[in-house]
Amino acid sequence: MFELGVVYRNIKRADRVSADQLARFGSATVHEAMGRVGLMKPYMRPIYPGSRISGTAVTVLLHPGDNWMMHVAAEQIREGDIVVAAITADCTDGYFGDLLATSFMARGARGLVIDGGCRDVKDLKDMGFPVWSKAVSSKGTIKATIGSVNIPVVCAGALVTPGDVIVADDDGVVVVPAAMAVATADAAAKREALEADKRARLAAGVLGLDMYNMREPLAKAGLKYID
Amino acid sequence: MFELGVVYRNIKRADRVSADQLARFGSATVHEAMGRVGLMKPYMRPIYPGSRISGTAVTVLLHPGDNWMMHVAAEQIREGDIVVAAITADCTDGYFGDLLATSFMARGARGLVIDGGCRDVKDLKDMGFPVWSKAVSSKGTIKATIGSVNIPVVCAGALVTPGDVIVADDDGVVVVPAAMAVATADAAAKREALEADKRARLAAGVLGLDMYNMREPLAKAGLKYID
Amino acid sequence: MFELGVVYRNIKRADRVSADQLARFGSATVHEAMGRVGLMKPYMRPIYPGSRISGTAVTVLLHPGDNWMMHVAAEQIREGDIVVAAITADCTDGYFGDLLATSFMARGARGLVIDGGCRDVKDLKDMGFPVWSKAVSSKGTIKATIGSVNIPVVCAGALVTPGDVIVADDDGVVVVPAAMAVATADAAAKREALEADKRARLAAGVLGLDMYNMREPLAKAGLKYID
Amino acid sequence: MFELGVVYRNIKRADRVSADQLARFGSATVHEAMGRVGLMKPYMRPIYPGSRISGTAVTVLLHPGDNWMMHVAAEQIREGDIVVAAITADCTDGYFGDLLATSFMARGARGLVIDGGCRDVKDLKDMGFPVWSKAVSSKGTIKATIGSVNIPVVCAGALVTPGDVIVADDDGVVVVPAAMAVATADAAAKREALEADKRARLAAGVLGLDMYNMREPLAKAGLKYID
Amino acid sequence: MFELGVVYRNIKRADRVSADQLARFGSATVHEAMGRVGLMKPYMRPIYPGSRISGTAVTVLLHPGDNWMMHVAAEQIREGDIVVAAITADCTDGYFGDLLATSFMARGARGLVIDGGCRDVKDLKDMGFPVWSKAVSSKGTIKATIGSVNIPVVCAGALVTPGDVIVADDDGVVVVPAAMAVATADAAAKREALEADKRARLAAGVLGLDMYNMREPLAKAGLKYID
Amino acid sequence: MFELGVVYRNIKRADRVSADQLARFGSATVHEAMGRVGLMKPYMRPIYPGSRISGTAVTVLLHPGDNWMMHVAAEQIREGDIVVAAITADCTDGYFGDLLATSFMARGARGLVIDGGCRDVKDLKDMGFPVWSKAVSSKGTIKATIGSVNIPVVCAGALVTPGDVIVADDDGVVVVPAAMAVATADAAAKREALEADKRARLAAGVLGLDMYNMREPLAKAGLKYID
Repeated sequence: MFELGVVYRNIKRADRVSADQLARFGSATVHEAMGRVGLMKPYMRPIYPGSRISGTAVTVLLHPGDNWMMHVAAEQIREGDIVVAAITADCTDGYFGDLLATSFMARGARGLVIDGGCRDVKDLKDMGFPVWSKAVSSKGTIKATIGSVNIPVVCAGALVTPGDVIVADDDGVVVVPAAMAVATADAAAKREALEADKRARLAAGVLGLDMYNMREPLAKAGLKYID
Repeated sequence: MFELGVVYRNIKRADRVSADQLARFGSATVHEAMGRVGLMKPYMRPIYPGSRISGTAVTVLLHPGDNWMMHVAAEQIREGDIVVAAITADCTDGYFGDLLATSFMARGARGLVIDGGCRDVKDLKDMGFPVWSKAVSSKGTIKATIGSVNIPVVCAGALVTPGDVIVADDDGVVVVPAAMAVATADAAAKREALEADKRARLAAGVLGLDMYNMREPLAKAGLKYID
Repeated sequence: MFELGVVYRNIKRADRVSADQLARFGSATVHEAMGRVGLMKPYMRPIYPGSRISGTAVTVLLHPGDNWMMHVAAEQIREGDIVVAAITADCTDGYFGDLLATSFMARGARGLVIDGGCRDVKDLKDMGFPVWSKAVSSKGTIKATIGSVNIPVVCAGALVTPGDVIVADDDGVVVVPAAMAVATADAAAKREALEADKRARLAAGVLGLDMYNMREPLAKAGLKYID
Repeated sequence: MFELGVVYRNIKRADRVSADQLARFGSATVHEAMGRVGLMKPYMRPIYPGSRISGTAVTVLLHPGDNWMMHVAAEQIREGDIVVAAITADCTDGYFGDLLATSFMARGARGLVIDGGCRDVKDLKDMGFPVWSKAVSSKGTIKATIGSVNIPVVCAGALVTPGDVIVADDDGVVVVPAAMAVATADAAAKREALEADKRARLAAGVLGLDMYNMREPLAKAGLKYID
Repeated sequence: MFELGVVYRNIKRADRVSADQLARFGSATVHEAMGRVGLMKPYMRPIYPGSRISGTAVTVLLHPGDNWMMHVAAEQIREGDIVVAAITADCTDGYFGDLLATSFMARGARGLVIDGGCRDVKDLKDMGFPVWSKAVSSKGTIKATIGSVNIPVVCAGALVTPGDVIVADDDGVVVVPAAMAVATADAAAKREALEADKRARLAAGVLGLDMYNMREPLAKAGLKYID
Repeated sequence: MFELGVVYRNIKRADRVSADQLARFGSATVHEAMGRVGLMKPYMRPIYPGSRISGTAVTVLLHPGDNWMMHVAAEQIREGDIVVAAITADCTDGYFGDLLATSFMARGARGLVIDGGCRDVKDLKDMGFPVWSKAVSSKGTIKATIGSVNIPVVCAGALVTPGDVIVADDDGVVVVPAAMAVATADAAAKREALEADKRARLAAGVLGLDMYNMREPLAKAGLKYID
């Protein structure tokens, strides 16, 4: 694990249908459906608002200030992938811009998740290529040290194994292990179905206190009302 | 103070007219009008730009990773309130999403100010329910420990007493003690009236140096011009 | 250097044509064209997205919580300038709002870069006066202590000499020393010309691995492919 | 509240015996004894390790970069007090050094808690005057703007009313409202008595799982052991 | 992976001799010996300076503000283990203090590595139980939600599988996968042997430029000396 | 300025006597003596407490994750120098450890100031080689890209020109331009002389309010006492 200098060409991608479908539920619902694990740290933010994507992870491990392996990763991208980039140390350099995005898009990538910096924000927005990053920085990088592609990486505090499903939107980025993709999509669909009804009742003025039968447990826990 | 496990049902809300009117001036002018006190820390940011609201505070004290009391708070909301949520420790979890927002809106709330995380950002934007928060996070919370509703809380560095006026916009969040609401609205209106004239003169090229008679005090303070 | 209490009236501004032209290339390309130096820290963010400006620097050194010198700086602004404000200590107060912006615009300023806070964000957006800052804060400032105008300052980690070219956009803020403005504009133009061709090839599916002849150096560096 | 420009000379200090006694239990035990409220943010750190003090709060509200009111506060110090300094905006300047410490000590102060910076760290350590601060900085401050002394302040996220008890040690800083000082000292003493017995049993190898009867509730909550 | 509510009783610990031996080399040398991977983020700091330990990891996944699973983890500790605690969200609460430390020590633990807060710092120092943490906080935690023990966790950006070797000292915390423990100990020993000779030559005034034959590659890279 | 790939061999060091003497006054007094400019950001901390040094700056500009130029800098060190290292982007890697320290000491360096990470903290403390850094990290660096030695650099927000005097202690790091070294030493000596008398009076219970004649200006500024 965390081998340096290797590229795994054949990775087992999660079930395609589930991987595509998970975007619809959004990262918050998916995160709940998984039992509240698998979330990247909230410092990961979209470079522009309004995107919601899901897809299978192609991972890349970079060195600080060096984006050489991004080009190696490009070749491993297939239609429906999302590239997940980890860095071996905290570094806010702009590892990714419009040229790489053009290449990634041509290869079928749906977006990038990077635990570092990104640049050409306006161009990426115009191209419709969403990126979730830790920073935005004009500073470019060099191409001097090899890392790895398609090894398990830790990105923004979450373990990402190549082929896992990534769900990213304005709320953040969630990782669904490939083996859990189908079950998570099912669970998320169920949550969503329930939410529609709850939303209607809450909109009609019903209180969560009553809808979720919370009054008794709250009283039991000692809650006191004072007039 | 800071009692745990209590809900105050009857709070003394600030003067309604002033509470409603203060939004018009914006947080910066209101902050000046109060003598530059009462501002929450600048890490409190709107989850989407362009909102400007004011209203009376319903406060809630939460525990890290636990939003149980949000449902208790919902019942205490009246038309024109803004919910202010403090957490007993720093925690970026997403304590609030579109379901709670539906409930809060149905009760008459104008927005939420929370010293923690928020989720369902896109839905909240679509619903037009503004939130000022410290973070955005997909991570949900549990319902296990009781806190309090409508006790004085410290939120993002500012003391908020239930019934105080909250003014929030793209510049930040300001707290106006209920007893100062009328006087602050008056002072803000006066500031604003003066600003229109100043703005016109500055736009015409008059310098602040001359408009504010700064040249003499600057020279007295020792400022030297070098050609 | 770093004299306090002085205003330099005559500064040598960079070549006008280059100073105006550099905006077109954006901060990332300009930063590359300079050899990857001169970038402000990535915590400097535009208060609203979508602006791209370049111009000559008028510098101002402020004290924490004190914006007195901003008015002194206003008088030194000429058409095509960008004001660069440094503070002698970290402080997120809102040193700048719509009144000062009105004055700066009337004097011909294209924008402000400040290593501190800014306020009246919505008004500034409506006026079309872009600001890059470290924070947004409603908190106003006093006018009590003199600093300096048009001395060399360190702003967000970058040295800015009065008259240098500032290039600012959604990716960040770059400083081009006045003496390098012409050469940098030339180098940036060359980079841009090359990029159009590269972009077309990458869009057509050509890999950076091949376009940049990276396969051999990668193999030499020890990269291994595993099926 | 948060009046500017006032000094309250007569404050009601907490019960002397309890105020003095609370140091013995330490901030963690006192915080538990209060029901886990009243803690300052953990960014407040001692400038040197190993101190443990308690005393009654004299509060001071300062402006960024301005320590004028520290001298006003000095006069209000009585034997057994701890000065608590809040700033109206985040600012890391060094508001306090060995000269002020000499004065504070001469007046009977036991230490300083400041939501800003401190300097002369080595001298303060040699003098044995403990300080809990947010930063250490050589940067001095001016004396230009008046704040207040002995008004309620928010310091590092905690509300401090003059006369409250402050307990500070290597674990952090806790505020005990004056009215709760006696009850808190009693509760803390009880906790401590219980802890001695627990410590002995745990040291002998008894597990918390058994000592606290956790096995059943854990199983009920669904915990599974896998061999 | 990341299952909630499970305790793995039988984990495969790394080779004992290597696990014990690695402390001797320190985290920096071990990190180099592994090829510069496996390091926790540098925000992980010892609560007191001067400790250097290595041992086998027992992992625990906690929820924010909840240390219930620490007691479950205690039972799984064997002589020579180091407990590694991850939290499902950022939270600086003090999850660990002198009572738990007494229990952990009695079970044979050598220290704790926690991506959260710790308290009773002075007691832990007196007991000689080292902790590496992200924060120090007096704030205690509740016991309400189950997590897991001995599942793979991400702690401070590093993946830790139960049984891996942890090396921690004043420089930080490194994770050595169990399968690599022996090889890493060998590589570290070799590095150390070489360093003694290098140190002697450098102390004698030999330059790294000459000792490492850097002058030619530097010249080739374009370095120019100017007199 | 900020040329890459150059080493200036002949720099004009500040007056030796003043450079040596400034340590005695400490960074806080020197900073005051200079008129409160020239301070590095307060995130720069000593890796162990208790050192106080001054000396002439040898500067080095590094790339993120690359310490190659440290070896080039070593050759330029003369007795009484302090090395000041800036990085072209934020990166917390450990660029410096005991081997380089051995070399630097052999060349006559008194310490290192680095806007990045450092490692081998315990060894450096044992050797008595003080370092002020932004982070501590076990992570080593590569030697791939050339930077520069003895060019002006911005380190932790302060401009450092080769030959300037650096004063560093537990309070922080101050830069004294070479041309101001003598005057600053004189001013600092005067300040110190005055402080001894002030300290004695304050220790005797005289208030700063009286010693500095503050009562009248405070009353003028509007300060009110309330009994």
